[in-house]
Amino acid sequence: MPIRVVVWNEFHHERTRDDVKAVYPDGLHNTIAAPLRGEDGVEVSTATQEDPDCGLTAERLAETDVLIWWGHARHDDVPDDVVARVKERVLAGMGLIVLHSAHFSKIFKSLMGTTCDLKWREAGERERLWVVAPGHPITEGIGEYIQLEEEEMYGEHADIPAPEELVFISWFQGGEVFRSGCCYRRGAGRIFYFRPGHETHPTYHNTEIQRVIANAVRWAAPTGPDVRGFGNREPLESLG
Amino acid sequence: MPIRVVVWNEFHHERTRDDVKAVYPDGLHNTIAAPLRGEDGVEVSTATQEDPDCGLTAERLAETDVLIWWGHARHDDVPDDVVARVKERVLAGMGLIVLHSAHFSKIFKSLMGTTCDLKWREAGERERLWVVAPGHPITEGIGEYIQLEEEEMYGEHADIPAPEELVFISWFQGGEVFRSGCCYRRGAGRIFYFRPGHETHPTYHNTEIQRVIANAVRWAAPTGPDVRGFGNREPLESLG
Amino acid sequence: MPIRVVVWNEFHHERTRDDVKAVYPDGLHNTIAAPLRGEDGVEVSTATQEDPDCGLTAERLAETDVLIWWGHARHDDVPDDVVARVKERVLAGMGLIVLHSAHFSKIFKSLMGTTCDLKWREAGERERLWVVAPGHPITEGIGEYIQLEEEEMYGEHADIPAPEELVFISWFQGGEVFRSGCCYRRGAGRIFYFRPGHETHPTYHNTEIQRVIANAVRWAAPTGPDVRGFGNREPLESLG
Amino acid sequence: MPIRVVVWNEFHHERTRDDVKAVYPDGLHNTIAAPLRGEDGVEVSTATQEDPDCGLTAERLAETDVLIWWGHARHDDVPDDVVARVKERVLAGMGLIVLHSAHFSKIFKSLMGTTCDLKWREAGERERLWVVAPGHPITEGIGEYIQLEEEEMYGEHADIPAPEELVFISWFQGGEVFRSGCCYRRGAGRIFYFRPGHETHPTYHNTEIQRVIANAVRWAAPTGPDVRGFGNREPLESLG
Repeated sequence: MPIRVVVWNEFHHERTRDDVKAVYPDGLHNTIAAPLRGEDGVEVSTATQEDPDCGLTAERLAETDVLIWWGHARHDDVPDDVVARVKERVLAGMGLIVLHSAHFSKIFKSLMGTTCDLKWREAGERERLWVVAPGHPITEGIGEYIQLEEEEMYGEHADIPAPEELVFISWFQGGEVFRSGCCYRRGAGRIFYFRPGHETHPTYHNTEIQRVIANAVRWAAPTGPDVRGFGNREPLESLG
Repeated sequence: MPIRVVVWNEFHHERTRDDVKAVYPDGLHNTIAAPLRGEDGVEVSTATQEDPDCGLTAERLAETDVLIWWGHARHDDVPDDVVARVKERVLAGMGLIVLHSAHFSKIFKSLMGTTCDLKWREAGERERLWVVAPGHPITEGIGEYIQLEEEEMYGEHADIPAPEELVFISWFQGGEVFRSGCCYRRGAGRIFYFRPGHETHPTYHNTEIQRVIANAVRWAAPTGPDVRGFGNREPLESLG
Repeated sequence: MPIRVVVWNEFHHERTRDDVKAVYPDGLHNTIAAPLRGEDGVEVSTATQEDPDCGLTAERLAETDVLIWWGHARHDDVPDDVVARVKERVLAGMGLIVLHSAHFSKIFKSLMGTTCDLKWREAGERERLWVVAPGHPITEGIGEYIQLEEEEMYGEHADIPAPEELVFISWFQGGEVFRSGCCYRRGAGRIFYFRPGHETHPTYHNTEIQRVIANAVRWAAPTGPDVRGFGNREPLESLG
Repeated sequence: MPIRVVVWNEFHHERTRDDVKAVYPDGLHNTIAAPLRGEDGVEVSTATQEDPDCGLTAERLAETDVLIWWGHARHDDVPDDVVARVKERVLAGMGLIVLHSAHFSKIFKSLMGTTCDLKWREAGERERLWVVAPGHPITEGIGEYIQLEEEEMYGEHADIPAPEELVFISWFQGGEVFRSGCCYRRGAGRIFYFRPGHETHPTYHNTEIQRVIANAVRWAAPTGPDVRGFGNREPLESLG
């Protein structure tokens, strides 16, 4: 069974700003999806906020194993019923990979329970993502750190729940740090937040960043049918 | 500075059902509040769903250090703006103690990000809450376990995020187990979920249960002003 | 690349006690190894305390991806240098699955840092292992719980570090609970402690128990070369 | 009941090197102890590696609530039986605060189960310790970060178990990051690792660093008698 991945993008900056178009002429979703198409056992499609129902009907979600989400300027335009459908699928086992500015997406905030607020600076400064969990499947093939010559800064304190597994910590040239690779479980679903990827920087063209995303897809994919039962129960033992 | 505690109760069963009235004639809130009034450095008041604004105005919440929450049948009748106010205060540092059937309260589900669903059975069976974190402040004064001769059963799998600290695990006579004492942080606020306390059982008259709640009040109380800053930032170091 | 598994057994009770021989005539190691031989992409061998160097030379460990450990009566007879070699390999990435009474093995205590002590009772009572992490790879193919009609009891508080992921909680007929499936990382290695498996009960003949062990082998297998560097470092940035 | 603190120091560099003597003329232990003496409800004494039994007899440890440990060059000279005594007390509930180069102390390695190795550089560079757990008692009175103008660098990956609570992350001028404030529980004892404090830098004269250590003392102090029982047990329920 292949892992069925949907790369979702709000697809706004690439259509309205020349500086972004220059870096991601096909849209962020297609740049993120392209290297995944070369992965064994992975099937990839894309969806955007422009599609009917944001491209995320119940039918399509039912056939999705891992959803990758990029958004920035139009979080509030994602309808609440779409967010509710995605959340239900995550809790039932679908993996979710949340990229960069999607920390402020409705779906991530709803799954985390916090504001997900943080510090930021658009100065195209150097970032180093240090591996703090060697041996973790998401870091496979990555050395001691990933260096990006120019990125937006995100700084602590970030108002997220403590990650269940912390995989990367970023160093920024301007003096900040950030928990950049964060693993969570919610229901039967696995969630990975991965920090880099501002729309004006060529981050998703970086092969190490692509490697991390591909690793995260395998880590987040559901491993079997979700067996859970809730509600009123008969006793298993005599209450005699 | 005393710890200012508000005990909140939906106060429904005690007014409508004789079997509950018999166990909690003054309302669950007053039974829960009474032993806290004897604690050094703790100031206690109560609020119910019957009060205007559920008794939880912005002014009152601003003067509350720890909020204790009991609800069961009328979760949906708590207005969303009240829930939003409580959540904002928790993220800013107010402690929250969530009791028993309040696992399904709007505020708890919103902070957890999951359905908070579980198995249950009303059979008045025996429960033992085993301490799995000796040395934790919430278990101070408690022995190896607390035994309750009759309680409602709650069973796993419970759809909650993995507790950051797991303090109690319950054994039930009918064959189930439950993570009964669960610590979380959301924002600057500490949250403790404590399982026991069905409305027809005298659980809140039990001095060990009272001890745990008093311990949790001290654990959850904010320890200082919340110093966090978000948003756009100047670099601390030269970006050269 | 297959996952190379070594099933290690102290192999003492099966040679000295008829009641154990009756349940595990080929030794616990062979009963544990047999179903793993049927797994795709897994290569299995066995080793015992009777072998020279406990069957765990540096050469063999270097070619082992996952080590499964069963011991009970002769923990102290495992030489310290063997324990040191195993520990070094775990920290470098080898998976370790610790079964039942091996909670008291030198290698587990050394990796945990605690006494690993617990309560116990040999009464052949009923155990139910409830899944508390649905969606976790180790629970794949398992329903809501695994029931064992007769097992030794292990009870809380168990003196182990809080599991990084808690997968199973056991219910025992006699009134106790236990954290029965516990995941840890130490260095680049993953460790899974799995409670059941007293030598007089047919636990390792149970297909669900076998499924959990096979799942744990895949979960614990190293995912890539271990890339870590320690020691004195030149600055990456100018110190001006 | 006051919190009884012992500040332990190997007391080697301050006696043998003029550059260290210049910064800590009374020894690191006395500089660390001094501000604690001004804390309400705290009783402070010191001990060094030069004292008989390292100043840590069973009698003294029995009367110690929190032990602060600084060591660097002479870890191997601490006798194993002293380490065993300290470990036993930690597991029984004594708090332990491990400072800077004591990451390589026998006691810390024994409690962690890993090598505790890391990257380092002595270049007197700038360090910023960012608070990532606002609202945590150890950060009380601290702003968004603590800045130290000159410190030794410690860099990731550090080979420690994932902290149960991560309180500080350090940024270093030369390009590295580090998990600088790490909370663990082992047995009934609480352990706090706090990174800063190289012997040639005036770190322990910094009032914010002193504040963190005082906060950690209160956090790590035992909260009550340690109630745990191990070994063979009678059933609580009928086994029919």
